[in-house]
Amino acid sequence: MKIRYPNGKKYTQPAEVPKPRQLKKEATFSNRGMTLEDDINETNAYYLNRSMAVIHKKPVPVQIVRVDYPARSAAVIKEAYFRQASTTDYNGIYKGKYIDFEAKETNIASSFPLKNFHEHQITHMKQVEEHGGIAFVIIRFSKTDELFFLPFHALYVFWCRMLEGGRKSITKNELIKESIPLSLGLAPRIPFLDAVEKVYF
Amino acid sequence: MKIRYPNGKKYTQPAEVPKPRQLKKEATFSNRGMTLEDDINETNAYYLNRSMAVIHKKPVPVQIVRVDYPARSAAVIKEAYFRQASTTDYNGIYKGKYIDFEAKETNIASSFPLKNFHEHQITHMKQVEEHGGIAFVIIRFSKTDELFFLPFHALYVFWCRMLEGGRKSITKNELIKESIPLSLGLAPRIPFLDAVEKVYF
Repeated sequence: MKIRYPNGKKYTQPAEVPKPRQLKKEATFSNRGMTLEDDINETNAYYLNRSMAVIHKKPVPVQIVRVDYPARSAAVIKEAYFRQASTTDYNGIYKGKYIDFEAKETNIASSFPLKNFHEHQITHMKQVEEHGGIAFVIIRFSKTDELFFLPFHALYVFWCRMLEGGRKSITKNELIKESIPLSLGLAPRIPFLDAVEKVYF
Repeated sequence: MKIRYPNGKKYTQPAEVPKPRQLKKEATFSNRGMTLEDDINETNAYYLNRSMAVIHKKPVPVQIVRVDYPARSAAVIKEAYFRQASTTDYNGIYKGKYIDFEAKETNIASSFPLKNFHEHQITHMKQVEEHGGIAFVIIRFSKTDELFFLPFHALYVFWCRMLEGGRKSITKNELIKESIPLSLGLAPRIPFLDAVEKVYF
């Protein structure tokens, strides 16, 4: 879909940029000031320490333009820009299988907007499934702190519905039907491997 | 190994930083101005386009300190530092299997120094093998443009020899014995999946 500014200039979607407010953690009772990313990183560390899986978050892709090399100290990046990721944020290995996923949250209460995913992320997860890997998304409704594990093949049905002119979001009822609920725990925080077991093993 | 400056101050190894000269491509006859990274990225694109494998390079890990958000234009990173990667540079999926590797080059003619690897990269590749994945390194001797595919389990033997007080490098003769030579081609540039087939399938 092409959007144009009133002056006729084409609008191109910029890379997803961390919002300034995300730089400081917001403390809420329900998640003790942790973001979804923190929770998943902690979960991955838990799984790694117990030799259950090897899953890491990929670094934020950055286009580096200018670097200073002060003598005798570390190189400083002086100008860089956020690039759009070409894949998902997390991947690794579980029981010999390649595992790949993305985690997204929404402030909307009753549906999850599909614009949270970029087309190349969908393409990437589709390729992963075609090559015999495990691909899924973790969706968090931040207002209620509800978490859902949605296998990629189910997400793809909703994505195609949108491409065919249907609704641009997944209703919460649809999510409840097609996904596995994840309950926030202590260790691990988000036990997504339990859902992987249920769906893929 | 701890190294100390003459003043007694501890030396901590900084993150690997791209050297300024690497920012412009050096044209040599043998590799037509391409770096090892360029060659591998092109190879991965070739494999992806032909649906042979889904392998991507991870972004360079950067610690972002300061970001400017100018109104109506893209966010600009104004201060950031290179961080040391906690894993290898490349991973993905091939024939349903998790695949993970690192690529390194040396200017030395007759041996490959093991200090090119960080300990956590070795740890990471070991974990990958323990979970049933495929881990290896691609080593390039830049003077002669020779390329070797060394499975991680073979690299690990040399790594342990070093830890036990033995030599801190792999001689070229040892490499020839333990690895599979890769010949630089046109499409793909570095046919490493042929070596993966030979060793793991």
